[in-house]
Amino acid sequence: MITAESIWNDVSLIREKVPLVHSITNYVSMNNSANALLSLGASPVMAHAENEVEDMVNIASALVINIGTLSDPWIRAMKKAMEKAGSIGVPVIFDPVGAGATPLRNYTVNELLSAAPPTIIRANASEINASAASAATTRGVDSTESSDKAVQSAGRLVESYGSTVCISGEVDYIMDKENTLKIYNGHHLMPKVTALGCSASALCGAFAAVNPSPLKAAAGAMAVMGIAGEIAAAADYCNGPGSFQAAFLDALYNLDQKNLQDRLKVE
Amino acid sequence: MITAESIWNDVSLIREKVPLVHSITNYVSMNNSANALLSLGASPVMAHAENEVEDMVNIASALVINIGTLSDPWIRAMKKAMEKAGSIGVPVIFDPVGAGATPLRNYTVNELLSAAPPTIIRANASEINASAASAATTRGVDSTESSDKAVQSAGRLVESYGSTVCISGEVDYIMDKENTLKIYNGHHLMPKVTALGCSASALCGAFAAVNPSPLKAAAGAMAVMGIAGEIAAAADYCNGPGSFQAAFLDALYNLDQKNLQDRLKVE
Amino acid sequence: MITAESIWNDVSLIREKVPLVHSITNYVSMNNSANALLSLGASPVMAHAENEVEDMVNIASALVINIGTLSDPWIRAMKKAMEKAGSIGVPVIFDPVGAGATPLRNYTVNELLSAAPPTIIRANASEINASAASAATTRGVDSTESSDKAVQSAGRLVESYGSTVCISGEVDYIMDKENTLKIYNGHHLMPKVTALGCSASALCGAFAAVNPSPLKAAAGAMAVMGIAGEIAAAADYCNGPGSFQAAFLDALYNLDQKNLQDRLKVE
Repeated sequence: MITAESIWNDVSLIREKVPLVHSITNYVSMNNSANALLSLGASPVMAHAENEVEDMVNIASALVINIGTLSDPWIRAMKKAMEKAGSIGVPVIFDPVGAGATPLRNYTVNELLSAAPPTIIRANASEINASAASAATTRGVDSTESSDKAVQSAGRLVESYGSTVCISGEVDYIMDKENTLKIYNGHHLMPKVTALGCSASALCGAFAAVNPSPLKAAAGAMAVMGIAGEIAAAADYCNGPGSFQAAFLDALYNLDQKNLQDRLKVE
Repeated sequence: MITAESIWNDVSLIREKVPLVHSITNYVSMNNSANALLSLGASPVMAHAENEVEDMVNIASALVINIGTLSDPWIRAMKKAMEKAGSIGVPVIFDPVGAGATPLRNYTVNELLSAAPPTIIRANASEINASAASAATTRGVDSTESSDKAVQSAGRLVESYGSTVCISGEVDYIMDKENTLKIYNGHHLMPKVTALGCSASALCGAFAAVNPSPLKAAAGAMAVMGIAGEIAAAADYCNGPGSFQAAFLDALYNLDQKNLQDRLKVE
Repeated sequence: MITAESIWNDVSLIREKVPLVHSITNYVSMNNSANALLSLGASPVMAHAENEVEDMVNIASALVINIGTLSDPWIRAMKKAMEKAGSIGVPVIFDPVGAGATPLRNYTVNELLSAAPPTIIRANASEINASAASAATTRGVDSTESSDKAVQSAGRLVESYGSTVCISGEVDYIMDKENTLKIYNGHHLMPKVTALGCSASALCGAFAAVNPSPLKAAAGAMAVMGIAGEIAAAADYCNGPGSFQAAFLDALYNLDQKNLQDRLKVE
């Protein structure tokens, strides 16, 4: 399904085409997301005003929506941008940061997913659970609370919205209607750095801009995140989460096919 | 009063309990604050919308308010969050960035301090002076301009609001109604990095989440800041304020009891 | 016109006077701009509220306006700040990030340039072209599309607004009514780091705060940016765009007269 070669092909396409990835993301992660995209080879742009987002989507190759720091004007702009992207075929990545933490986030997740189903939803297990529950609530479906809840929840999101869903964690699950891929790459320092999940969503945007398969795009992005994290953690100048951040961007920038061949763990 | 052992106990509690620290802070410092909290062992969350902050405070173990980049909607949200925190006993750290620089900042400081007195006020000397003067103005108390003004101003804030006050600088003063502690740790590179003061306030939040004494919480946070700064500046890969930032987060993450025993300078 | 000695004189003045540089800039670049200013020796402050910007301009030595992440309240505040700065003689640096990308950006560029012509306009070639075209549109002048368009466009902006214009790129052009300077410093890693252009505009602010010649101020800032970039890229701890960022701030902080003498390439 995906291999070091297929991912390398996508990375090469990103570096060659330099796709414009429009992000409406949270204040904490903006700088990280922009730098992750630049280091991979894509071109980031941020624009969040209601009276600008449709024009920006119009020239973008992917749209990344991240609800980490919400307010009403931003929610309205996110909705407009997602609807515009849906109407012209620009792939949309949706990152429901903190879903489940507050009513505003749950409302927003449901509002945006219902208005304009995204191409890819990427989040951690509890955000996927909350997003599915949130969808459930308004759709009259009972929330389940079983042991492997996140995979079930992801399945529900796939079914409800037709999205490809990526649950990130020690193992990343990427699911669409027919397939489930698991990526085993990554490093335990990664959750100690803020906004790396947001960067993962940003990279999903870059991959979706060059690969028409959302499943392969999300899997490629997650594999590259995990592998760059492994390389960064192994760098002799990585001594903790501070120096890891620099080493991570360096690893993305210097990524080559051999890194992928040596390290990719997928099934 | 505080010792390497007592501070280490707090650090261990933070790493064990991973308290959620809700920050409403300025755009410049958000990423730094989040990373400082993660490196120490706490869990950061940012949320600033009027219609979300109370819900977020409700699940947080501490609230950090920082007025570095103000606007009216944010001021209203800060007030709501502080009032909510006060009503349910969540400790509040208040950082009056730039107090004294503009009427809007002075207004905001007075408005917020009056509405919901914080647990800890942390700022540099001129901000403490301005905050006290601002309080003074509306309370009809003349501003004093003596040589050790900041300590007098801090005393006034302690008296007016019942807060513990921390004046950060080459020597950090932490004062409540009965005690004054002085911390002598730190390094001259620290003021050359933006938002380290904001990170100090964020760490006060993490300590206040696990230590019921605001005096000890603030002193522990300032000691850890100063000691991590010393370790970072001494790292062989620190060559200036850029590499210092990475080394600082690394030092927070790798902090152990021996670092505290070897370096703590308190009286 | 400018020499290593004249630039060094400005750097020394900045370190001695520590001018307050007020930035209304985009969310992505705020932290970088603040750190670049601190590392050079200036004092950054960010404030963007309509009801605060005039008071902040009043105590600032330079104002930097950057339209990277726009919204209507910010546009109004930018206009107010620029008008205030113009009325009291505070130099204004204008950075039309993404001009040409959307109607909102074109509108904003024209609105702000017309309301309060800035001291220095700094941007890349396509933004300079778009800014000139945007000016042209509302002034009834046809847009030209010649081969060395950016230099022509810059000339048009110089003429229309009396501003000094800096086109940044592999070669930086700095133009006023009588002179054109070219700076050949820099490194190919620089465009792989987000917001370095924004930092360049911030440094123009610091130089304009101490040098009354906008041409010399802009040239000094661009030379220092390029030279710090070269030093950073050559550092043994620079392995890509992540570690470059730290090394760049280190280089700004450690910059000395010999660096300028050895590396300055101007004509």
